[in-house]
Amino acid sequence: MKDVSPSAVVKILEGEALWPPPVWLMRQAGRYLPEYRSLRAKAGNFWTMCNDPAMAAEITLQPIRRFGLDAAIIFSDILTVPNALGVPVRFEEGEGPVLDAVASLDGLERDPDVWAEKLSPAYETLRRVRGALGPETAVLGFAGAPWTLATYMAEGGGSSDQRAAKLWSYRNADSFSRLLALIGDCVSRHLIAQLDAGADAVQIFDSWASGLPKRQFEDWVIAPTRRIVQQVRAARPGACIIGFPRAATLEGYRRYAEHTGVNAVSVDTAMPMAWAAENLSPQVAVQGNLDPIALIAGGSALRSAVDEIVTAFSGKRLIFNLGHGVLPETPPDHVAALLELVRAAR
Amino acid sequence: MKDVSPSAVVKILEGEALWPPPVWLMRQAGRYLPEYRSLRAKAGNFWTMCNDPAMAAEITLQPIRRFGLDAAIIFSDILTVPNALGVPVRFEEGEGPVLDAVASLDGLERDPDVWAEKLSPAYETLRRVRGALGPETAVLGFAGAPWTLATYMAEGGGSSDQRAAKLWSYRNADSFSRLLALIGDCVSRHLIAQLDAGADAVQIFDSWASGLPKRQFEDWVIAPTRRIVQQVRAARPGACIIGFPRAATLEGYRRYAEHTGVNAVSVDTAMPMAWAAENLSPQVAVQGNLDPIALIAGGSALRSAVDEIVTAFSGKRLIFNLGHGVLPETPPDHVAALLELVRAAR
Repeated sequence: MKDVSPSAVVKILEGEALWPPPVWLMRQAGRYLPEYRSLRAKAGNFWTMCNDPAMAAEITLQPIRRFGLDAAIIFSDILTVPNALGVPVRFEEGEGPVLDAVASLDGLERDPDVWAEKLSPAYETLRRVRGALGPETAVLGFAGAPWTLATYMAEGGGSSDQRAAKLWSYRNADSFSRLLALIGDCVSRHLIAQLDAGADAVQIFDSWASGLPKRQFEDWVIAPTRRIVQQVRAARPGACIIGFPRAATLEGYRRYAEHTGVNAVSVDTAMPMAWAAENLSPQVAVQGNLDPIALIAGGSALRSAVDEIVTAFSGKRLIFNLGHGVLPETPPDHVAALLELVRAAR
Repeated sequence: MKDVSPSAVVKILEGEALWPPPVWLMRQAGRYLPEYRSLRAKAGNFWTMCNDPAMAAEITLQPIRRFGLDAAIIFSDILTVPNALGVPVRFEEGEGPVLDAVASLDGLERDPDVWAEKLSPAYETLRRVRGALGPETAVLGFAGAPWTLATYMAEGGGSSDQRAAKLWSYRNADSFSRLLALIGDCVSRHLIAQLDAGADAVQIFDSWASGLPKRQFEDWVIAPTRRIVQQVRAARPGACIIGFPRAATLEGYRRYAEHTGVNAVSVDTAMPMAWAAENLSPQVAVQGNLDPIALIAGGSALRSAVDEIVTAFSGKRLIFNLGHGVLPETPPDHVAALLELVRAAR
């Protein structure tokens, strides 16, 4: 479909500068929307919803219908990859995800056909979403990055300081490196299959890239991401890839932009956008970085926060987004107001 | 006592470059030490221990006796200041602190005599610690920074994204600014009183300085810290102050070093130390930044992590420390090994 008339998001990823910038929001499908909450009340479990393509497609489309955003990102979860690798994942109401913690590569699933089978709901979701939307709306697939997925797998869930993964990497860098390579192989295949199922671009979420010493950031964030980008591009030349090494240092962001090969870098709320405009652009497009809490606040705080971002990037390759996901307390009206503000940017 | 023979830490803060660098560790008194655990088993509550000068002094001295560190930081807590401001603080076993959340300045204590009375255990702890140590060991006082304390006061406890404080600041910047000024007044008096009670230097912990958009970082981290530094120096000229805007962006760290007036900036684990050596030094001394998890790991991971830091700072003004506090799982032997490594630095 890209050949017909690429969406604004794809044009930016491929190197054009469009203004005003296109806009979508991480976690734009979710609990802040009443139509999501009513589906969720029927379906119950988050994980069930992720793995039911009819429901996941409907949820993906909800914010597009309501707001006319420039991209739809499929409703899924980064933990589908550990699940495909043979690590069961459970989501309990009101708690974070729980995994069976792993301390070695023993017993991890290595058969790509099994991965594809377990990950197949995402592909069916993508086919449905791509079929339901016109070419002006980019459809995005995604996956977690190896480092971030390893933190969940080593810890058996979320963690504030990624202790288990860091300990593993410090104590046995060789086996940790093999773990990231295995995860990376699964991620690459997952991204390729999402592109084949209709994704116009894919995003790699390294949500726990913060707090890593420089050498670890090079070894566990940049190198595994570069390997994935190379694998995906070897299979699908020209594939559009967005990377999000959340809360990396500025130097980390710069090296990520220069050395991974991604088309765009998504940046967190603390990124000074004038710095990003000067140091990341034009090497890559930049995506971000409104504070999700400014979106809850709305009003003049939202206006001035949007203004700072668009002023810093005026005329450069920007995909307007948040610095993190939409929070459940967000009034939907504020999202509509945000879109008006961004689309009025001159 | 500084006049007799300043400690290595004070010499560095006052502008000398000493090598090998002095070393102390954030949370060096704590649960990883068996002698701490045995005291704690008798005393029960953390908060009780903070407010009992005999016990707090003993705990402060434990790691000095065991390891001969170059500085002793008093055993206390940043939440003593909200408590002095009339916000009760409770520590439940196995949980974080709980405060009565505040949504306005109404009812906050404004009488400096009441603050001083409530904060007096820290001063008695300092007198005891200073009396027990020779001049070669620096004695450090500390306080939380206004932004970080405001996040606890607005939220009623810890928070992963500082949502309540950010919302307050976005919705009513004027009243939030008055809140930070009130907290800042209390912090300044607390730091001055600690210097008067025997502290050779004081550290301001802005533990939640991450994730702030640039303008908020300027308004809620840099400006209130500069105001405190000015208030303390107006009362005690030449006072040595270390600031720790944890996990700020590199640009944020640079502006903090240039605009707050602190003698040293403590930097987190992700800080690339070659960057710090070039961009923060010689304006300020730099303190940091070993990964506490490398200290748990020990062995070759610890050796190479220490080596990276001392190599980047060789001959410059460094106070060797962690990038965050010592974790309870840390083997005390690894702390001893760390001290040997740092003191062998050439």
